Amino acid sequence: MRIFKLAAELQNYALEQKRAGRTIGLVPTMGFLHAGHASLIDIARKKADIVIVSIFVNPTQFGPNEDLDKYPRDFEHDKALCIEHGADAVFAPEPGAMYAPDASTWVEETVLSKPLCGARRPIHFRGVTTVVAKLFNLAQPDCAVFGRKDAQQLFVIKRMVRDLNFPIEIIAAPLVRGEDGLALSSRNRYLTEDEHRRALVLSRALRAAVPALKRAGYTAAADIVAAMKQEIAAAGGQVDYVEALDADTLAAPTEATSAILLAVAVYFGTTRLIDNELVQVK
Amino acid sequence: MRIFKLAAELQNYALEQKRAGRTIGLVPTMGFLHAGHASLIDIARKKADIVIVSIFVNPTQFGPNEDLDKYPRDFEHDKALCIEHGADAVFAPEPGAMYAPDASTWVEETVLSKPLCGARRPIHFRGVTTVVAKLFNLAQPDCAVFGRKDAQQLFVIKRMVRDLNFPIEIIAAPLVRGEDGLALSSRNRYLTEDEHRRALVLSRALRAAVPALKRAGYTAAADIVAAMKQEIAAAGGQVDYVEALDADTLAAPTEATSAILLAVAVYFGTTRLIDNELVQVK
Repeated sequence: MRIFKLAAELQNYALEQKRAGRTIGLVPTMGFLHAGHASLIDIARKKADIVIVSIFVNPTQFGPNEDLDKYPRDFEHDKALCIEHGADAVFAPEPGAMYAPDASTWVEETVLSKPLCGARRPIHFRGVTTVVAKLFNLAQPDCAVFGRKDAQQLFVIKRMVRDLNFPIEIIAAPLVRGEDGLALSSRNRYLTEDEHRRALVLSRALRAAVPALKRAGYTAAADIVAAMKQEIAAAGGQVDYVEALDADTLAAPTEATSAILLAVAVYFGTTRLIDNELVQVK
Repeated sequence: MRIFKLAAELQNYALEQKRAGRTIGLVPTMGFLHAGHASLIDIARKKADIVIVSIFVNPTQFGPNEDLDKYPRDFEHDKALCIEHGADAVFAPEPGAMYAPDASTWVEETVLSKPLCGARRPIHFRGVTTVVAKLFNLAQPDCAVFGRKDAQQLFVIKRMVRDLNFPIEIIAAPLVRGEDGLALSSRNRYLTEDEHRRALVLSRALRAAVPALKRAGYTAAADIVAAMKQEIAAAGGQVDYVEALDADTLAAPTEATSAILLAVAVYFGTTRLIDNELVQVK
């Protein structure tokens, strides 16, 4: 497996693969890889001739009071996982290899990025779309795999790809949970044992809400959200948001809504976790 | 020569050419082509296997009170010119083929786009960078040719390409003037005979300023600019701006400045013309 630290190295490699007629699958990650990431690599492996995994804790998507500095890193473990799952190359740049000191260009999605995490983390998605556009231009993928755990990110990226005409298929991979139901996340390692146990309320509350929402439709969304907030607070979670939105527009659901994104962001201690269910209501 | 109206048609063609191992040169234009555009096509023709000319009066780079509706169009003439200069394909989409009704993604350069035309046309460069990023993803060029007449646009595009890692060489083509010195522009056709004659002051004032600026350096910039404003006003031009800026930063020139962009935007009647000289001062 090749390991690239410099943007130009990755791009030369990718362009060479394309010239040789090979297809490329990209799996963009922030590292500290778990079984969720592994499932993305497996999907790319089935889909493309060449699989590139990027590992980059992107500073431009972290706010000033967020966990950029303490975000967990373990390159040796990540490397081993990528090899085990058959990646052809890992791109692991330092921030200075990704951003010039006078970098001044941003890619910004201005609608789907606004609610949910976008309302709480105002520069987050601008950082995500910018770095993903850069990774697309560097890795030249035919397809890129993103997890449904970051549902809003997936929607924003799909919109960017459509709006900017990237010739790339975005593949949405199922959310992967631990045996106890907690959505896998690199941030789970911040949790104490007690916080981890309390955080199980997220998947429990989401799972319980799905049949109710399916049955009663969008008019029941407000009541279901209120009940979830109560249940989560009772378990010791500090709710950042619990929302039920039209999955196409990320606006309030209406009669026309065919799928509802039920999304939560909740603090346990100082750790902010997100989880969601996509509910077909038509 | 192929003519494409749909984004997907162009992209399929471009990807097919790339798979066949051919290089692509892109010449983005707003049509109503003149000898300046022809020189860009000639450069692309020498540089790449396949030359694609885009002809698109991009609505997102026009402000609400600008000349979008009356911008001159002549597709038959443009087509003939492209054939004559050996283009392989023309991409001439309708606005609806370029922008979805709910398009919500912008590419924005936030430093070099701010002074000069950016200060007078606040959404202009955001529209330019967005449409050029889209054209890059559709036409998949190895190189793209832009004229030095739109000096600030050239700088902004170069910065975007660097910041977003597009694998594209940006080629700067010399400004082309008519025999009387007026910089060629599709907008020149708006000018009355009298306005055209008055507008010759632009190239005259710029040409006269070059040796003075070269000799005296950046400390003389303010005096030179003031003299140019006076000369242009005396000839009946209404100055939008005359500025001398560091060509690397588009900020005020300093001791460290190695090249100065001397740029003017001036109304003659209701027609706004731009012109510039790039002056090496070191």
